[in-house]
Amino acid sequence: MSAPVQPLTLNPDRLLPADPATRAVARELLAEVADAPIISPHGHVPPEWLAQDVSFADPTSLLLTPDHYTNRLLHSLGGVELEQLGVPVGSELSPERSRAAFRLLCEHWHLLAGTPVQTWFTEVFHDVFGVRVRPSAATADAIYDQIDAALRTEPFTARALYERFNIAVLATTDDPCSDLAAHRALAADPDWNGRVIPTFRPDAYLEPARPGWRELTEALGQAADQEVSTYAGHVEAMRRRRAFFKACGAVSSDHSHADAGTQRLEDAEAEVLYARALAGRIDAADATRLRRHMVNDQARLAADDGLVMTLHPAVYRNHDTGALSRYGADVGGDIPTSVEFTRALQPLLDAYGNADGFHLIPFTMDETVYSRELAPLAGWYRAVYVGVPWWFIDEPDAITRFREATTGSATFYKTSGFIDDTRAFCSIPARHGIARRCDAGFLARLVVEHRLSMDEAAAVAHDLVDAIPRRAFKLD
Amino acid sequence: MSAPVQPLTLNPDRLLPADPATRAVARELLAEVADAPIISPHGHVPPEWLAQDVSFADPTSLLLTPDHYTNRLLHSLGGVELEQLGVPVGSELSPERSRAAFRLLCEHWHLLAGTPVQTWFTEVFHDVFGVRVRPSAATADAIYDQIDAALRTEPFTARALYERFNIAVLATTDDPCSDLAAHRALAADPDWNGRVIPTFRPDAYLEPARPGWRELTEALGQAADQEVSTYAGHVEAMRRRRAFFKACGAVSSDHSHADAGTQRLEDAEAEVLYARALAGRIDAADATRLRRHMVNDQARLAADDGLVMTLHPAVYRNHDTGALSRYGADVGGDIPTSVEFTRALQPLLDAYGNADGFHLIPFTMDETVYSRELAPLAGWYRAVYVGVPWWFIDEPDAITRFREATTGSATFYKTSGFIDDTRAFCSIPARHGIARRCDAGFLARLVVEHRLSMDEAAAVAHDLVDAIPRRAFKLD
Amino acid sequence: MSAPVQPLTLNPDRLLPADPATRAVARELLAEVADAPIISPHGHVPPEWLAQDVSFADPTSLLLTPDHYTNRLLHSLGGVELEQLGVPVGSELSPERSRAAFRLLCEHWHLLAGTPVQTWFTEVFHDVFGVRVRPSAATADAIYDQIDAALRTEPFTARALYERFNIAVLATTDDPCSDLAAHRALAADPDWNGRVIPTFRPDAYLEPARPGWRELTEALGQAADQEVSTYAGHVEAMRRRRAFFKACGAVSSDHSHADAGTQRLEDAEAEVLYARALAGRIDAADATRLRRHMVNDQARLAADDGLVMTLHPAVYRNHDTGALSRYGADVGGDIPTSVEFTRALQPLLDAYGNADGFHLIPFTMDETVYSRELAPLAGWYRAVYVGVPWWFIDEPDAITRFREATTGSATFYKTSGFIDDTRAFCSIPARHGIARRCDAGFLARLVVEHRLSMDEAAAVAHDLVDAIPRRAFKLD
Repeated sequence: MSAPVQPLTLNPDRLLPADPATRAVARELLAEVADAPIISPHGHVPPEWLAQDVSFADPTSLLLTPDHYTNRLLHSLGGVELEQLGVPVGSELSPERSRAAFRLLCEHWHLLAGTPVQTWFTEVFHDVFGVRVRPSAATADAIYDQIDAALRTEPFTARALYERFNIAVLATTDDPCSDLAAHRALAADPDWNGRVIPTFRPDAYLEPARPGWRELTEALGQAADQEVSTYAGHVEAMRRRRAFFKACGAVSSDHSHADAGTQRLEDAEAEVLYARALAGRIDAADATRLRRHMVNDQARLAADDGLVMTLHPAVYRNHDTGALSRYGADVGGDIPTSVEFTRALQPLLDAYGNADGFHLIPFTMDETVYSRELAPLAGWYRAVYVGVPWWFIDEPDAITRFREATTGSATFYKTSGFIDDTRAFCSIPARHGIARRCDAGFLARLVVEHRLSMDEAAAVAHDLVDAIPRRAFKLD
Repeated sequence: MSAPVQPLTLNPDRLLPADPATRAVARELLAEVADAPIISPHGHVPPEWLAQDVSFADPTSLLLTPDHYTNRLLHSLGGVELEQLGVPVGSELSPERSRAAFRLLCEHWHLLAGTPVQTWFTEVFHDVFGVRVRPSAATADAIYDQIDAALRTEPFTARALYERFNIAVLATTDDPCSDLAAHRALAADPDWNGRVIPTFRPDAYLEPARPGWRELTEALGQAADQEVSTYAGHVEAMRRRRAFFKACGAVSSDHSHADAGTQRLEDAEAEVLYARALAGRIDAADATRLRRHMVNDQARLAADDGLVMTLHPAVYRNHDTGALSRYGADVGGDIPTSVEFTRALQPLLDAYGNADGFHLIPFTMDETVYSRELAPLAGWYRAVYVGVPWWFIDEPDAITRFREATTGSATFYKTSGFIDDTRAFCSIPARHGIARRCDAGFLARLVVEHRLSMDEAAAVAHDLVDAIPRRAFKLD
Repeated sequence: MSAPVQPLTLNPDRLLPADPATRAVARELLAEVADAPIISPHGHVPPEWLAQDVSFADPTSLLLTPDHYTNRLLHSLGGVELEQLGVPVGSELSPERSRAAFRLLCEHWHLLAGTPVQTWFTEVFHDVFGVRVRPSAATADAIYDQIDAALRTEPFTARALYERFNIAVLATTDDPCSDLAAHRALAADPDWNGRVIPTFRPDAYLEPARPGWRELTEALGQAADQEVSTYAGHVEAMRRRRAFFKACGAVSSDHSHADAGTQRLEDAEAEVLYARALAGRIDAADATRLRRHMVNDQARLAADDGLVMTLHPAVYRNHDTGALSRYGADVGGDIPTSVEFTRALQPLLDAYGNADGFHLIPFTMDETVYSRELAPLAGWYRAVYVGVPWWFIDEPDAITRFREATTGSATFYKTSGFIDDTRAFCSIPARHGIARRCDAGFLARLVVEHRLSMDEAAAVAHDLVDAIPRRAFKLD
């Protein structure tokens, strides 16, 4: 028996609450913001795609290979090895392998029921490529062919997509030593009217016990043209690279460490530990202490240069060491852990939490901190904006839980605006669209429960996609 | 462009669930309890207000200055300094400053969308003062004038409000050394028919490492007329002061420390640590151990004298040391941390958890412990009643989450009844009203899901505002 | 005034969502699975009941005494001592005491409003025994008499109930040294067509610091006919007992320790610690390290013999030591604690997380780990299936929260299927029925929110009661 081919549809009311009165209000609120430009202040699209206005080779390398959300689920459901999906990115992908990988996605489609991965792909297939049949073993080849043809015949270059997606700002994530060539090329290109900005991501340079840290430090010194044999020199090099990024359009720096610690050391001790780290003789505990001091110093620099500081700590990286050695980092073997912010951020916030122009946006995958720590922090300190659900919890129900947990003591106005954080370029409209739907649904409930009037809710809905992210990320 | 003036309304269905069938049931349940007298077993209204039947000077000092929920949000949204709001309480507030402070609240009103602060003020403005226009920059002065006039012309003294709010019991929070003059004056006043009772709050006396602890200890000894040079003497002094409070109407003692620990020491070790603390030579770890022993001894005393013991641990006090030095404690710079009860309370509960007449009510701002620890504890130990959402989570959605998390393993009957915990006197009816609405909504869902019949739900709704808090706090 | 007698009803829509459109879809989905056979891969029904096809002596010893969920609530609500309920199991229960115990349940019935205990008993009373009046003081005797009569006149033996409950598989929980006589008798019984399988539960044998561990170890050696004076011998004895269980039909082993730790030791160190434990000279920290190593070795054995490994760590056992000494273990004095899986399971999963045929099912009473740790682990590692809500959180709202928290990053297909985990035999259909209703409600919401089509939701609903538990527990 072959399964009948089912249609792929996209209901205009999708993700809106079931209750008819609430849905009617949500629909109205959504209509107000559905066509607003996308502000994407944190993500992982390669800037070269836009600088070179690339065309995409095949459906798999565009849609599937770079998307670790999907890869990990296909891996976990059994039978699929990441090699089959083209991982690691950059490996040769013949037409046959590309088709076979895409087929794996379609064959496992029914097992993805209820996941954001299925929701994102449905929107991408339907709205970006015009697919109208549900993915399955029976339809895999036809869908592949349809997308493959679209990639060749439609105006489907990176810039055409950027325009079509109605993106107002797109931030990339970049190494502190990067020359930001692609960003500079875009800035110099008279044909380019978009806004693609870099983000300063110095994590690896702030982990003195990490293999290769010394080499990174030397590279940093070279990039900054600054002696880095002392800790003071290291800070100065960071200051210079941050300034270069800012000159190239950056508005924020991004930080992910095992915890959110920001305890300062005495200057003299910092120098001693730094020297020990350069000599390769720092132990794990001291490396952690030095790293927390370094993160605190990033805030000190930020209070001065104005780059917004985003934090998303507490992920056990490369939990599956076998996968790490086969496929490299960032393919799926990262698992969240519990996180603590109240004590960890105290040294940083006590110093800069109300400083003019300093912004700190903590993100979390541990939902427990929303009502307990992050909303209270954002409801006191001027610098703090609560980051929206991140990574594993970037999905409809968690977005609603986030609003339920943070609105009371942080307000809507001390949150970050939606962040897509994605490598899957074509899913950007879907991700922002989902967040808009969830926020419309949440606001609609407040209206129907007579906690907000319609005009108030509409004002918040507008601000959530425009004024709020612009203010949090200083985008004007 | 000046924004049009919008009406301020209070829908009778506010906060009830959107689904029409559920709302109809909730409305019916709410009608049963909407007019029930308010039982307020924990709060921070100054008893002097009632003893002296004060009149209130101006809108700001009554409504805004003492309300740290509001102050912290205005602070965090930027631009507002607490001085502008009259903080610290007691500083001179000229008519001009009072009006300017009130204007700040109104100007920021739209940014408070969806917060309990906005909900509370809406109810206070609308129902207590008859305001019918939405606060904004345009309406600030008119609202101020309307309230100011009401405060002068209406029967608006503290006692008149107490009557009008239909309060059956109002507990204050008091220092163990207090002579409870206001409470005794009320008791002796033939014109007073209300019930305002003190609460024994010995925290500061149980923190041997805290600056000033030795002076507090000496004051305690004097108040109790008891030698406190030994730990045994300290316990005896506590016993006497508790007895004095009880004689003045107290039904409970209240405790807030960094954790919920209750581990006992050997008597001899307690004496040694106490002596060291008096001598100013106790270290932080021993001070914590002695404090946990002291809290355990409060339970021992409670098992004897019958005062209900309430706990609300795990707040990082004065997180923002700059705000502490400018405005003093309790103005907003406190941030919750995660908390652990299962291990921490074991020594106390193993000793007194099923003792006749001992009641322990743990409160939390860490919602994770409701289903994991507090409901299971209350579902086994006779002494334990789960406290309702506290402080940062005293808001509609969290109240509903609390019921969802605790009812299954603690029942409604092992919870505390609603606690307003407020310094904002005029918001007491609003706060209790919101809780009644949320509980009615939760019960209505159980009815519509055929998990309770209507008569069962109505009985629970009644008990939640009367029998349950009366039993938990021994109020009869 | 005597309360009027109220009817006891069981609405066909019970536990389905209130919204009419959602309820209609849920009803349809429920209809698809309402009559599906029950798969119960973990529970505590005595296998002797079925081997001997026992008749039940009286309502209390069948329904109340073994049910610690109920006992603990009656205890906590005050007044009831566990002796009155027939605890510990096996104590003599005269007809008078049985009737008096049952009366206690009925008298407290109204206080159980909204609890799963009330829901389970309602279903058992109504559907298994035909009771049509609500339990209360007034109806207690009549209900008791009705059930007592049913137990004598109806076909009400253990096997008749097994048939009537439509059970496809029922797993028991068994000591590693058990000769599994009841299971073997069932296998040899030509009149028996059911499937009752043992579960290997070695916890006590893996706790080297526990009193009596040495005696257990010797008993294990004897049962396995294997020298256990070395750790290698202990592992071999375990291997043999696991093989015996598997030969008798077992599909899984079950493990509950204070934490989820699985850190390995060097072989030589394991031997040293083991020898020290046998000599009674191991300290608590080393006993914990050895236990974690032993749990890791259970996974090693499982990767070889294929028994599914279930874990449910992080309960503070016998929190109330008075209750322990009066009534023994497992009667109610166990309280959950927070749990950590990401770091704790890393050594185990790094070794076996993607191994062919290895399955690990972690259960939790700490809901925070669902979205933060368990769903991400199950969404990467092939071996991991997220266990459904366990024990204190086996209740409708928590089941729905579980789906909301895990579906996005684990999918439905990497969860365990429902587990009743009960000693209350007659409540098995009620418990599975409730889970089916909650899952139907959750799926219906996805349909009405246009996140799944009806045919997709129906497929998932079917799989949740059949293919999913069969695959997770290897039941085919």
